[in-house]
Amino acid sequence: MTTRRTLLKLGCVGAAALVNHPATAAEVCRNTDNDLRELKARIRNARLRPVSKLHSLTEPIIIDRVEMLRRDDQFLVRAVCTEGVTGWALANPGLMDSAFGIFVNRVAPFFSGKDARDLEMLLDEVFVTDSNYKWQGLALWICVARAELAILDLIGKRTGQPVHALLGGKLRDFVGLYHANGDRNHSAQWVVEKLKESVAESGARAVKFKLGARMHYTDASTARDHVLIPMVRKHFGDDMVIYADANSSYDVATALKIGRVMEAYNYGFFEEPVQFDYLQETKEVADGVSIPIAGGEQESSLWRFEWLIANRALQIVQPDLIYFGGLLRSLRVAAMAREAGIDIVPHISGSGLGSLYMAHFASVVSNTTEYQEYKGDPDKVPYEVTGRGGRFRAVDGRLAVPMTPGFGITFDPDYLSGLEPVRV
Amino acid sequence: MTTRRTLLKLGCVGAAALVNHPATAAEVCRNTDNDLRELKARIRNARLRPVSKLHSLTEPIIIDRVEMLRRDDQFLVRAVCTEGVTGWALANPGLMDSAFGIFVNRVAPFFSGKDARDLEMLLDEVFVTDSNYKWQGLALWICVARAELAILDLIGKRTGQPVHALLGGKLRDFVGLYHANGDRNHSAQWVVEKLKESVAESGARAVKFKLGARMHYTDASTARDHVLIPMVRKHFGDDMVIYADANSSYDVATALKIGRVMEAYNYGFFEEPVQFDYLQETKEVADGVSIPIAGGEQESSLWRFEWLIANRALQIVQPDLIYFGGLLRSLRVAAMAREAGIDIVPHISGSGLGSLYMAHFASVVSNTTEYQEYKGDPDKVPYEVTGRGGRFRAVDGRLAVPMTPGFGITFDPDYLSGLEPVRV
Repeated sequence: MTTRRTLLKLGCVGAAALVNHPATAAEVCRNTDNDLRELKARIRNARLRPVSKLHSLTEPIIIDRVEMLRRDDQFLVRAVCTEGVTGWALANPGLMDSAFGIFVNRVAPFFSGKDARDLEMLLDEVFVTDSNYKWQGLALWICVARAELAILDLIGKRTGQPVHALLGGKLRDFVGLYHANGDRNHSAQWVVEKLKESVAESGARAVKFKLGARMHYTDASTARDHVLIPMVRKHFGDDMVIYADANSSYDVATALKIGRVMEAYNYGFFEEPVQFDYLQETKEVADGVSIPIAGGEQESSLWRFEWLIANRALQIVQPDLIYFGGLLRSLRVAAMAREAGIDIVPHISGSGLGSLYMAHFASVVSNTTEYQEYKGDPDKVPYEVTGRGGRFRAVDGRLAVPMTPGFGITFDPDYLSGLEPVRV
Repeated sequence: MTTRRTLLKLGCVGAAALVNHPATAAEVCRNTDNDLRELKARIRNARLRPVSKLHSLTEPIIIDRVEMLRRDDQFLVRAVCTEGVTGWALANPGLMDSAFGIFVNRVAPFFSGKDARDLEMLLDEVFVTDSNYKWQGLALWICVARAELAILDLIGKRTGQPVHALLGGKLRDFVGLYHANGDRNHSAQWVVEKLKESVAESGARAVKFKLGARMHYTDASTARDHVLIPMVRKHFGDDMVIYADANSSYDVATALKIGRVMEAYNYGFFEEPVQFDYLQETKEVADGVSIPIAGGEQESSLWRFEWLIANRALQIVQPDLIYFGGLLRSLRVAAMAREAGIDIVPHISGSGLGSLYMAHFASVVSNTTEYQEYKGDPDKVPYEVTGRGGRFRAVDGRLAVPMTPGFGITFDPDYLSGLEPVRV
């Protein structure tokens, strides 16, 4: 059966006409098959093309070493080139405290002696080296991502360019934001109050809240969902952009019911309606509702993003910039999505300078929305925005894209001097 | 287009007739869709049912703690119940040296205070607890697997039963073996000589060797493949069961060409023809050749096994008993495969007592072949088979299933006394 979304997308023929003419429908079906094949080929090609300007740098930048350093509960990665220039990345301590063994044993040693200009290719090589592909998933890719970020910072500092310039050049000076509320334990009224406080503080022009019960749903969570969806719209009015995130909570039937309520209240997207690795079921939800389905936070496979995009299972792709392996791999997903006319709105964690790395990424991507995820500046490590001073935080609902070399922040040298190497 | 394998499987109508009668073909297509839906539902149900007899134990076995201990480069897991009975599992040091942070922080603490009889349910709970599902993949599941093995050993020792009895009861006293050669750097002739030596030593009645160049192929590797496939058959004769493993090396077109050569020489299965996460492409290879396609070593998702099985993309499923999360989760895959009439032949690593844990697993599974993967007894940790003495090794091409409580081996107490707790 040709679904609502497919009919809407065909454009060339009226949906009502199709339903009454099965022969035409069969023809459309055949054309759709051909279109799918052609789209898949374009998406596959898109992820094989370079996504940065690193290959156009004229001088070699040989990486001497990439190291994991620690102070108290914080983990920082340092990349040093043979000429002694240093790049830094801050990790998310709540993940790196478990993954550092993978970083030290399987990721860091690979980069020594490599030319940083080959970074795009090195991401493919580190995956195959030492059977690292067996470790596919967040555990490997957060380590690769933090190494990549430190190397990008190093390249930026060595060449005097902000990272967004290395990634292809910024398309915007400011990145707009949405504010997400992560609560599932309080009342619907409480969530609305918290969202109002957050919006008042950050100036965000879009909001997101949680549905379901995280990886499952209950009668109580569904009752709350049915209250929250209209309530948030009512409180913020028709001009606010509103998203909701089910974190894999539903089965298809329940997701369709909830999705139709979200349709009625003009929601911007419906995130992770069913379990994240249930690809076909995600497509069934996308086919059954007209609002965009968003997802990809838990995804580590380029092939699966290809499937999700080509089969229109997602209308917004959300690789996590770190879980997926860094800015360059996420730019590959952006390029794949672009071929299908789909936007990318990456997932981020707040800790580990999530907003900073996101701002560089979002500044260079053409196929994204006006609103990026914002989780504040929760890191305890002392740094300041290079040149301008102060922390990297939203003002009037947006982030100013840094303009100084590397990622555009400077860690406190006294703090850095207290770091110790992590050994396993 | 209806493929060769589909036509063969339909059975009820001659393939030639189908090709000449498009109306019949369309009908078959519809029936196939209904069959697929029905099969998917049965497979989904199969993985939700209990796979062990743990729920029928009458007395609670409360887990006091699960701990990671280390001596030199070896990692052992100890599970202790509140009554002081101890279970042990040996880890694969080449993986656990990178993953121990996940074990210590995210897996071990979960099990304290839980009733070991709930182990099947606990495997689902540990996945959701503390957002561990973000860590889906080998890194998380090898930690869960080693905890599970230690807990199974503990339950066996506490109740006086071998682990296979807890898993459902053994169907056989001996497990047959195949010997795998992992070389890609030497000549075809060298591989044949090594296989002959291994077969002479272990008495295995089936062999496996490597194709391609591991995650890619080259002109040289393809030339070698075309020499090896006939040469191994010629040397071992028509009665030897022969498998070959491409480790994700090919694209679909090349895999089909190689598969047809393997067909001509009556190979038993063709393992991982294309990149492991390319599910649709794996199915295209399976549809295009008549020999069984094997795979699943790199797979961590029950949903993806469901897809691979229901869509006939694999004819032999090979979850790794450890990478996939242990014996109980692998039994779920066995149950799913059984619904589709498919055999399971798990992948194992040699290190970390791979053969011992496999022997318990293979002894209880009805839908497996006569030959399980065998990689010898490479562990350096001193132990002996309880009661019988000696190491756990193949004799006359088979392994005797242990009959004493737990996994049926006893680690050297002097060695154990030198273990130190792993802290992060």
